[in-house]
Amino acid sequence: MWLKTIVILEPYMKKFALVAMLCASSYVQATDSVNQEEWRQLSAENVVVMTLPHGNVYIELAPQFSPKHAERFKSLVQSGYYDDEKFYRVIDGFVAQAGPQDGSDKDKQVKALTMEDEFSVTDQFSYTLVQKNDMFAPQTGFKDGFALGHSPDEKKAWMLHCPGVIAMARGTEPDTGSSHFYITNGQAPRYLDRIMAVFGRVVHGMNHVQAIQRTAGIEGQDKIEAATFTPMVKVRMMSDLPKAEQIQLQVQNTDSQAYTKSLEERRNRSSAFFYKKPKPVLDICQTPVNTRIVKS
Amino acid sequence: MWLKTIVILEPYMKKFALVAMLCASSYVQATDSVNQEEWRQLSAENVVVMTLPHGNVYIELAPQFSPKHAERFKSLVQSGYYDDEKFYRVIDGFVAQAGPQDGSDKDKQVKALTMEDEFSVTDQFSYTLVQKNDMFAPQTGFKDGFALGHSPDEKKAWMLHCPGVIAMARGTEPDTGSSHFYITNGQAPRYLDRIMAVFGRVVHGMNHVQAIQRTAGIEGQDKIEAATFTPMVKVRMMSDLPKAEQIQLQVQNTDSQAYTKSLEERRNRSSAFFYKKPKPVLDICQTPVNTRIVKS
Repeated sequence: MWLKTIVILEPYMKKFALVAMLCASSYVQATDSVNQEEWRQLSAENVVVMTLPHGNVYIELAPQFSPKHAERFKSLVQSGYYDDEKFYRVIDGFVAQAGPQDGSDKDKQVKALTMEDEFSVTDQFSYTLVQKNDMFAPQTGFKDGFALGHSPDEKKAWMLHCPGVIAMARGTEPDTGSSHFYITNGQAPRYLDRIMAVFGRVVHGMNHVQAIQRTAGIEGQDKIEAATFTPMVKVRMMSDLPKAEQIQLQVQNTDSQAYTKSLEERRNRSSAFFYKKPKPVLDICQTPVNTRIVKS
Repeated sequence: MWLKTIVILEPYMKKFALVAMLCASSYVQATDSVNQEEWRQLSAENVVVMTLPHGNVYIELAPQFSPKHAERFKSLVQSGYYDDEKFYRVIDGFVAQAGPQDGSDKDKQVKALTMEDEFSVTDQFSYTLVQKNDMFAPQTGFKDGFALGHSPDEKKAWMLHCPGVIAMARGTEPDTGSSHFYITNGQAPRYLDRIMAVFGRVVHGMNHVQAIQRTAGIEGQDKIEAATFTPMVKVRMMSDLPKAEQIQLQVQNTDSQAYTKSLEERRNRSSAFFYKKPKPVLDICQTPVNTRIVKS
């Protein structure tokens, strides 16, 4: 499977793909213990299936980092709250935002949450380090496949606004988010790190997120009619779907030795394609954590 | 117009949009000289209109930075070379790549170009500085709306792989690019800076780039049939289109004082929405350079 993974990482020329395949075989790892499994099975109780008119978006929740927001979203999903609601604010290179009509009964029935913009960690906080001196965070890394920022000095960590994360929208004050959410659809808006509650990420179907109808055009463009806005046909927890509609998803185990090795390969760019070596740094938001479907 | 611009920059909550509108009025600039115009008119001779089945993509070429590649692309466009060819390699969060069938007569008829991965500059090189100590470049900034990296020590500058740039694909060797191109569709793959020839950027229609059919799924997913790949219906220079199909595009003048002020506002995040201030740094690839359509 690493063959395929590495080919996907650097896929822009067929000739190069061949080179990558030749190089990649040395990274196939033995998996001796559970901890070292290259893939992690997602729990159907923790995966949201958002059905858009053009396809399904699969989102893994992160209750380990944003417990109240993940729980709230799951609870709203299970009540059918988001069915037929629309993405009413969709900006190129920024976010697709959805929720019920502002100020409606449905909107007001949901109470505001206390912000979960970061969390406290001990000196023993363990995760897979990706980069020090990232422009926005002292350190970045992965835990359970989620991209985190980490400040050892402050003993804090936080989920990063990489493409495809889901976070709760809010008003000016921090503790005002309730049910409206956004999914980032372009270059990571990292300046939102530590002031918004990110609570999950898209693990499959990012193409469908990127295809959501934009609601705001550029100056001089014809108005985009609200009737064309993309609705959520239905939003369900995977575990609540009929068995025939469920799929088994696995995500690369970012805690594994194999994943750490792949980071080093990615950092060092040993392929001949890199006739000049780039700086040996990694933008965590441009570092793939792959997903696969397992046939049961 | 700055009102609208700044609302678009930070548009994820209606309540916040109101705050931004109130703050923004102080950034309306007088435009005393041509150099200080807030908007720059694009030349129809320098804009490519790529018609996809689902909409038009408008690309401004950058002959000032990659003269041979911009000229080659324009020449191929004018010969109808790309019409009906397909995006055959489209990867989520990476690139959409297109061109004729590998090894076909059409493919072989086009000669390889000498690489234009960076260019030499003098100590007097002038551009709008955005950030020092970007993770991949000593300095970043805009010139003519294009995102550049700059190394004063090396006296070199280069076009950055921000989302929406167009660059020539190539083989393992640097001087092998000819007609196949890619457009970046996700988080900026900055590790490709300085080893690929970027020669333009999408100024309008990035939503249509993001909606191009992916050609590679994830492991376990059904094969994506080549018949579903997105074709280019036609690709033309704007100036060669019938007048009725031409539109007049303007792009923010990144050399203007108004734009520099907007960068400072973006860096300092004075809005109350930022109840904790992010680090006062800017990811140039997440710094919008807006486009507008002018009715003639």
